[in-house]
Amino acid sequence: MSREGADAVAALELNAAFYDAFARSDLEAMDAIWSRDEAVSCTHPGGRTLQGRVAVMGSWQNLFSGGSLDIRYSGDSATLVRGLAFVNCLEHIEDKTLVATNILVWESGSWRFVCHVAGVISEAAPLRGAPSGVLH
Amino acid sequence: MSREGADAVAALELNAAFYDAFARSDLEAMDAIWSRDEAVSCTHPGGRTLQGRVAVMGSWQNLFSGGSLDIRYSGDSATLVRGLAFVNCLEHIEDKTLVATNILVWESGSWRFVCHVAGVISEAAPLRGAPSGVLH
Repeated sequence: MSREGADAVAALELNAAFYDAFARSDLEAMDAIWSRDEAVSCTHPGGRTLQGRVAVMGSWQNLFSGGSLDIRYSGDSATLVRGLAFVNCLEHIEDKTLVATNILVWESGSWRFVCHVAGVISEAAPLRGAPSGVLH
Repeated sequence: MSREGADAVAALELNAAFYDAFARSDLEAMDAIWSRDEAVSCTHPGGRTLQGRVAVMGSWQNLFSGGSLDIRYSGDSATLVRGLAFVNCLEHIEDKTLVATNILVWESGSWRFVCHVAGVISEAAPLRGAPSGVLH
């Protein structure tokens, strides 16, 4: 496997570990997944963008305090951009489908999350990007 | 101004140009804003992630064919991560507020978009990240 291929596979493995920590409400595992050296940000569905490690990890602690969540993912793909990995996938929470963009940096010998953005998919009425959209 | 400060200001300027092109439905200006060298991706609100320049620019062409959109933005901030710029801001479309993450790479002497993700904010019921969330 090429170096780029191996890097992409490793990024997808960290993405899997992210959803495993998420599903198990494992705050310690989630903490280990996020970058310690870079400015991290996280946008939960319906929420504003949280910036900085304290705000981001606080949101996971808050979320996990509500108990475990039935979350699965599918359709994961990784693209390398200037040494960062952009991982896209679908999230499945109960009967909702969400789209996620996860961005990883290489740090201390492994990938780490630097950005997570997730939002609900509305197949019927995307807000833009299709002629049937609500806002245009 | 420091080099980092100047880079951040330049990233915010391109972010402004993005919303200007968006508001004017100017496909040529929008095309010039996106990277030609890197793998680009774009997630419109409620939609799946579009990958590659053809799919992304096609979505803007499709969107712009519906006429101009009353879009404004606020609260823009830029963070440099490994030479990329992460720009976060709020979008205002009619009575909706959206949150956007725009990621820029430095290419041919200027910033260019490599990723745009936008989703609607639901102040009342974020899907996760707050105790009152719907899905946990």
